[in-house]
Amino acid sequence: MTNTPATHVPDATDVVGLYDAMFRRRDTRAEFTGEPIPAEVLDRILTAAHAAPSVGLSQPWDFILVTDPAVRRSFREHVHQERAVFNDQLDARQAETFARIKVEGIMEAGLGIVVSYDADRGSPAVLGRHAIADAGLYSVCLAIQNLWLAATAEGLGVGWVSFYREEFLRDLVGLPETLRPIAWLCVGPVRDLPTVPDLERHGWRNRLPLSEVVHHERYDPIRGR
Amino acid sequence: MTNTPATHVPDATDVVGLYDAMFRRRDTRAEFTGEPIPAEVLDRILTAAHAAPSVGLSQPWDFILVTDPAVRRSFREHVHQERAVFNDQLDARQAETFARIKVEGIMEAGLGIVVSYDADRGSPAVLGRHAIADAGLYSVCLAIQNLWLAATAEGLGVGWVSFYREEFLRDLVGLPETLRPIAWLCVGPVRDLPTVPDLERHGWRNRLPLSEVVHHERYDPIRGR
Repeated sequence: MTNTPATHVPDATDVVGLYDAMFRRRDTRAEFTGEPIPAEVLDRILTAAHAAPSVGLSQPWDFILVTDPAVRRSFREHVHQERAVFNDQLDARQAETFARIKVEGIMEAGLGIVVSYDADRGSPAVLGRHAIADAGLYSVCLAIQNLWLAATAEGLGVGWVSFYREEFLRDLVGLPETLRPIAWLCVGPVRDLPTVPDLERHGWRNRLPLSEVVHHERYDPIRGR
Repeated sequence: MTNTPATHVPDATDVVGLYDAMFRRRDTRAEFTGEPIPAEVLDRILTAAHAAPSVGLSQPWDFILVTDPAVRRSFREHVHQERAVFNDQLDARQAETFARIKVEGIMEAGLGIVVSYDADRGSPAVLGRHAIADAGLYSVCLAIQNLWLAATAEGLGVGWVSFYREEFLRDLVGLPETLRPIAWLCVGPVRDLPTVPDLERHGWRNRLPLSEVVHHERYDPIRGR
């Protein structure tokens, strides 16, 4: 990098750890050991999440740390019901593939982190949200990705569970009506992380080449599928 | 980089670069030098974005790289109109603070990256989206955060512009009706990155302590504001 005077000149240390976390990161289901997360590690990954960018500096996220086995069991039961709902929408070939895919590690991971969105935080005048109401939602997702990468670098696995109805999860952890649950993240130490995503390994879908999603100056409909 | 040993034992290299990027990262407006981004650096940050997790492995993002000054100028003009719309919603004290805040670096940065969401990708049966339609949107945001962190580690700045109407931006870069623009990111080399976020520095809003957004077992309404 040539001209970044008086400031940051990137070296290998900057990029190696970051790219390593990004490319090792997986959506984890089966690999949790069930061991607890050391308190200082949990604090670091939450601090990382909380350092994410947010529209109008609203920081519209909350993190509810759920360890209670009864609550996790209840959530898992709900998730399995929703798994069945999705399964009913599949054709025979898809259903056969789906049968091999694990969609959650709620009991295996010692911790569930519910991440929610509070649209009222920083309102009424949230700078940067007047034209795009969903910009606050987007901020919460940026925090989730910070958490995910930090956890990966710390040797943990993270699995985002999305087979649930928002009302169910809201009631389960006592979120007020004005807050929207965005994710249930299973977080904990793992034996290893798979090299290939589960969905690819089980033949559900393959990753796209980067060239198919990059366009120059204007969207290219030939490239788009 | 993609090969995982049986068990990952984190060391300092894993976490230092990652946390450094997370905490140095800023939403950049005024600091762009206007220099071009080396091709291999641009390729690395797009590869990082494309390595993000996505619901059902749908990878529902596209990246439109905009350098054309005429297109950027047209976008900037639209953003300034929307800035005025927001300004009209503020009381006198807020408007005075807002007047000091720069909301875009569209011309200063050499490159705009429009990130869009394609809900049809991987459909009809997107695994993990049947109960939460917005899960695809969330995936796009995870890709944006990967890009942002990678760019930061590479010595670049990124500024997310959100003062625009989605229809305007869709037309501007030729997105089909079925695609939704999620962000315009100004990306380029920077002189430096501010230590404190612009909005905090100018007195718009302060960052919250982490303790206010972390809850144990259930959402705590006393903690929530």
